[in-house]
Formats: sequence, C-alpha cells, structure tokens
Amino acid sequence: MPPTSVASIRWLAAPTSASWLQQAISRPMEVLIDHAHCERKAAGSAVQLMFRYLCEPGLGEVLSPLAREELEHFEQVLALLQARGRYLEPLPSPGYGGFLAKHIRKGEPLRMLDSFLVAGLIEARSHERMALLAEHSLEQDLKDLYGSLLLSEARHFGLYWVLCEQRWDRSVIVPRLEELAEVEVQALTGVLEKPEDVRMHSCGVDSF
Amino acid sequence: MPPTSVASIRWLAAPTSASWLQQAISRPMEVLIDHAHCERKAAGSAVQLMFRYLCEPGLGEVLSPLAREELEHFEQVLALLQARGRYLEPLPSPGYGGFLAKHIRKGEPLRMLDSFLVAGLIEARSHERMALLAEHSLEQDLKDLYGSLLLSEARHFGLYWVLCEQRWDRSVIVPRLEELAEVEVQALTGVLEKPEDVRMHSCGVDSF
Repeated sequence: MPPTSVASIRWLAAPTSASWLQQAISRPMEVLIDHAHCERKAAGSAVQLMFRYLCEPGLGEVLSPLAREELEHFEQVLALLQARGRYLEPLPSPGYGGFLAKHIRKGEPLRMLDSFLVAGLIEARSHERMALLAEHSLEQDLKDLYGSLLLSEARHFGLYWVLCEQRWDRSVIVPRLEELAEVEVQALTGVLEKPEDVRMHSCGVDSF
Repeated sequence: MPPTSVASIRWLAAPTSASWLQQAISRPMEVLIDHAHCERKAAGSAVQLMFRYLCEPGLGEVLSPLAREELEHFEQVLALLQARGRYLEPLPSPGYGGFLAKHIRKGEPLRMLDSFLVAGLIEARSHERMALLAEHSLEQDLKDLYGSLLLSEARHFGLYWVLCEQRWDRSVIVPRLEELAEVEVQALTGVLEKPEDVRMHSCGVDSF
C-alpha cells in the first residue's frame, strides 16, 4: 500500500472489521452500486463546497479537479455496472453522511474547517475499505476496478488536509480532526432495515 | 463556424445585438469573471439534473462527462483570471437563469423535458456569445480562450437535444423548444443596477 494511503488511514479512529469485509465481498453488486452513489456524492460535496466558498482564493482550483476525478470514477463504476447488466438503483442509506454533517459547526470559519475535515475523513474511510475490496474481492474485474480507483482516492484526504493547513494552525486542526474521527466511527453504526444489507459506509469497525 | 454551432444558434429566437458585443468587449474582465461563474453554474446544473434523475438509464453517462467538461472550462477561465492578477468575485446577476427556471413546468415528465430544453438554450446562447467574443475580443489571450472553449461548448446543446429525443417525439419537443426560446429572449432583458454593467447573459438581442 502506498504511504499516502497509510497517512490517510492513520487518522481513522478504528479500523474496519473483518465482518464488514466478509459481508461486503459476499454482496458485491450491492457494494458496487453503493460505491457509484458514493462517487457521485463525493463529487456533489466538492461542487457544493466550491459554490459555498466561491470567492475564497485557492479553493476552486483544488475542488474543481477533485470533483472531476470523482465524476470520472462514477462513470467507471457505472460502466462496470452496465457491463454486468445493471444500473444505478436507489439504495436505502445507513445515514453515515447525515450523521457526520450534523457535527459540522454552524458559524464560520469553523464550518469551513469542519466541512474539510469531514470530507477528508469520508475519503479516508472510503479509501481504507476500497483497499480491502481491491485485495479481497472474489472477482478479478472488481479487484481491478477498486485497485485502479485506489491510488487517486488516496490523494483526496491529503487535498482536504492541505486546504486546512493553508488556513489554520495544526494545533487547531489536529484536535478537531481527532474529535471528528471519533464521530466518524459512531457514524458507521447506522442500522439498515435488513441486517444482511451492506454499504460502503455501513456498520463494521473493530471497536464495536 | 462549425455546423453544430449553427444548429444550436438556429434555435435562438433572436440574435445578440451589436450593442451587447460592444459593451462586452469594452469590459473584458467583467465578462471573463462572469464567464467563470457561468461555467461553474453549468457544471452545477448538470450535476443537479443527474442527482434529480439518478436512476434514469442513459443520463449519468451523458451528464457526468458534461459536468466534467464544464468544470475543466471553469478551471481554464480561473487560470486566466489568476494570470491577470484577479480571482472570482461576486457579481450581481441579471436574473437570466432564475427567469428561465420559473418557466420549467412542475409535474414530471414535463419538468424533465423543460429542464433539458432550458439547459440546452442556455448552452446555445452562451455558445453564440462566446463565438462573438472569440472573434471580436481585443486581446489575443481572450480570443484564444473563448475560441478554445467554443468547439466543445457547441456540442452541449446537442447533448441536451439528444436526451430529449431519446425520450420524446419531435412533435412534442419542437413546439416546446420554440416556446422556451421566446422565454429565453425575455430572460435576456434583466436589468442590472448599473447600466454600464455587462454579463454573458445580460440584455442585448436584436429584437429589442
């Protein structure tokens, strides 16, 4: 695994459990469809942040290419879904993103800091789980897809981290990142209607 | 001018006036900043449509690359702004997009049809005005920029047109496109606070 991915995973407060991985590799199409949704949501979040802080120098030129990369990944996942005779389907959400969003403080500039950190933590978790799927998926085309997305995903946590570092001191960023990393683990406890259902961000970390 | 651009301009109910062009080339930085906003808004609209009609087959694979292309253009315009020591600045809007949006019918599937047609008409008008700027701007870097964006922009009206044709008969599409093209000309009459202000979609068509 490249060092950048280790760097991003380092911030996660608990690693993904073996039980999540087992469930995920046993329901590959469900995870693949959910992953397509994750990519388009990540693109949507980057665009939304760019729109919110439109005139903030240094932001558009980072967030716009990031959104493009997420959209490109979305298209790759969509192509594989279509190759397997499927398409995007609505999937009930485990509430992970919504739970995290509630912990973003409302007043600026704290809202901006928290938004970057939450976006970075979601990237870090996605990256950790995609690395597991790239290694353990049972079908070669899935291993290849997750493997190919992995390297560029690994940079995304770093991009959000740099956006923070350009604006705040590490003594402000690190304690808040640690708090939000705990929240991220709680966000992963969301319960889906059917216990056999699995999502990129459904329950399954080792501390639970 | 390539045939695709003629095809898109054909649908506009009135051509841009010489007075708009004169005003636009006399205030190039204002138009350039506004154009950066137009590109990011076009990307935002494509992402928004993709999210609204998420599970509609054939949509994500058209709208996602289109959004990526608009974001790439946004980055190109931003780079030129920065090369000239400027950045995105908030600009009061002439109300063009908002006026058009009010004419999108509310119930589905008419809302989808109207959304595609309105998005296509905005692309057609942008394309028409960018062609004028590519030809008449006084500075070479601006001529080059607008010229380079033009060819790919020319395809965008066509993409929205094809999305309509895949779902509706021409006998439904064409009359509605003609109605909305009239609305588009009305949308261009929005008044800015200062009469010298100019935008990509501010007042200036020959029928007025």
